[in-house]
Amino acid sequence: MSTDSLIDELRAAGPLRLVVFDFDGVFTDNSVWVREDGVESVQCSRADGIGIARLHAIGMEMLVLSTEKNPVVGARCRKLNIPHEQAISDKGARLSAILIDRSIDPRQVAYIGNDVNDMGCLRLVGLPVVVADADPSVLPFARATLNQSGGHGAVREFCDAVADHSVRFSGKDGA
Amino acid sequence: MSTDSLIDELRAAGPLRLVVFDFDGVFTDNSVWVREDGVESVQCSRADGIGIARLHAIGMEMLVLSTEKNPVVGARCRKLNIPHEQAISDKGARLSAILIDRSIDPRQVAYIGNDVNDMGCLRLVGLPVVVADADPSVLPFARATLNQSGGHGAVREFCDAVADHSVRFSGKDGA
Amino acid sequence: MSTDSLIDELRAAGPLRLVVFDFDGVFTDNSVWVREDGVESVQCSRADGIGIARLHAIGMEMLVLSTEKNPVVGARCRKLNIPHEQAISDKGARLSAILIDRSIDPRQVAYIGNDVNDMGCLRLVGLPVVVADADPSVLPFARATLNQSGGHGAVREFCDAVADHSVRFSGKDGA
Amino acid sequence: MSTDSLIDELRAAGPLRLVVFDFDGVFTDNSVWVREDGVESVQCSRADGIGIARLHAIGMEMLVLSTEKNPVVGARCRKLNIPHEQAISDKGARLSAILIDRSIDPRQVAYIGNDVNDMGCLRLVGLPVVVADADPSVLPFARATLNQSGGHGAVREFCDAVADHSVRFSGKDGA
Repeated sequence: MSTDSLIDELRAAGPLRLVVFDFDGVFTDNSVWVREDGVESVQCSRADGIGIARLHAIGMEMLVLSTEKNPVVGARCRKLNIPHEQAISDKGARLSAILIDRSIDPRQVAYIGNDVNDMGCLRLVGLPVVVADADPSVLPFARATLNQSGGHGAVREFCDAVADHSVRFSGKDGA
Repeated sequence: MSTDSLIDELRAAGPLRLVVFDFDGVFTDNSVWVREDGVESVQCSRADGIGIARLHAIGMEMLVLSTEKNPVVGARCRKLNIPHEQAISDKGARLSAILIDRSIDPRQVAYIGNDVNDMGCLRLVGLPVVVADADPSVLPFARATLNQSGGHGAVREFCDAVADHSVRFSGKDGA
Repeated sequence: MSTDSLIDELRAAGPLRLVVFDFDGVFTDNSVWVREDGVESVQCSRADGIGIARLHAIGMEMLVLSTEKNPVVGARCRKLNIPHEQAISDKGARLSAILIDRSIDPRQVAYIGNDVNDMGCLRLVGLPVVVADADPSVLPFARATLNQSGGHGAVREFCDAVADHSVRFSGKDGA
Repeated sequence: MSTDSLIDELRAAGPLRLVVFDFDGVFTDNSVWVREDGVESVQCSRADGIGIARLHAIGMEMLVLSTEKNPVVGARCRKLNIPHEQAISDKGARLSAILIDRSIDPRQVAYIGNDVNDMGCLRLVGLPVVVADADPSVLPFARATLNQSGGHGAVREFCDAVADHSVRFSGKDGA
């Protein structure tokens, strides 16, 4: 089932224990600025920063999982105070290992992605979400499509929805 | 009351003694460019610079008040020759203290903001204004909504309106 | 008279001896990227570079005249091989002096601008032109309004029109 | 003949031995960020990076051919692992020499361009392609016009189409 009713899906999903974000195309519009010496920059959103702060405030666990090797991913995640793993070639396998290691039921995990390399993670978790401008090939694997595009408020939209409407995790499954 | 008729509101507000701006989302489109070493840049507008120069020319007092810690806020404010305070966690409380300290009646202050962390300031001042692309949650707290978005002419629009239409401050209340 | 028929105006203007460009808002979209240490960057267009090369190829004299002090103006002009003067507070007076010094009839000059600080130059020259997104206050002073915006092809549009349709200067007035 | 049916043209073209890309306006939106010391940056797309990786995965030969002298061209090509030649004044002549040297039939070559300096290459190859926002003057020379603009998915669109629909090269002509 694919729907853009994020709030309905959040309620149906029950309490979330972990929110996992892809980086490029989610925290950014998938662009990269390349300087003539190869140094990279990305365009992020202060609005997303406020959303992430709201999730920190309610104690939500978060993680960024990226295939990109460039340290710009880590630079932004440190500012937002989100743990990150990057240069991951098979993100689905890596997320699966992380969840086993931390004893987290995949059904209690949300994943926000935008492109084909997010497919494994989107199929793994209970609440797979994609940004408004996601690659068409991943749309069938999402339970919710955000109204906002990557780098232009998608993260803020998701965080606001979770902070305002998700079922709180009580320490035991409460859905 | 909420209206987008900035000129009517300027006239109703009477003489302004101080214009206070939020930075991100007002002087910028709320984006930040993050370099791989974490250095930040923001996109500002030369058109806004011309508007600020017009307010300087009529002797209008201005202030930028930002929650953001990154020195890019100060870098832009120095170029525009506007005093600034940044890394302010509670901007409403800080602005209130500033106005008491400078013996300025909040009713003679305009504040231009865009997001939830501007709420305290918007509720405090006589002329609360938001940019066209402000977060929906702050719209009810504004007396005027600019036609232009942050970083794309919002500051210029406000400055032109003040320079062209506001009641001049004569040293005593003249409204 | 104001018209957007650039080609008609070029023909009516007769042979051009000098094309003068404003920089910010003409070669750029009027944005400036400010880094946390105050270093500035601007977004220019490779398409404009091809247009400028076409004018160089037909031997057209060009000049950039800017009020902006930042060296980014000169950095771009050097790449395009166009002489420039910047940090000019009264551009109309300066252009007038330049034309007298070089014995150029203002009627044989085109000026491309976008904002209030271009007013003096627009009123001085025979072919005053503004970009599509110029400040509304300068529109009445232009004989042609480009279809393209600053930084997004305005310079290319003007250069292509001159290269394709303007009356060639023959060494004596030929209009 | 000009058509935007890229897939039809790919099938009609038969097996491709080489894909040649222009850089500015194809991998970028034709913008360049100029810093006050003249250092340049360009905006590229991570989505294009995924497309290029797909062509690498099927063993497609690629080449970037640019008139631009700035090393930012090479910086991006190294990241994408595509050979590049830049500062080429006559790209048609250079590509012709390359194809002779490598014994590649021009009919088995695709070229993706956007502006007048691509004309020679577009006329040379069997599958000339332009981006959605190409200069109008080159449209008549293209067999396919991409739906996406340069820097905003044009390269990804082309790569996805080749990976999904092109006739595979079998070592001898198989069309």
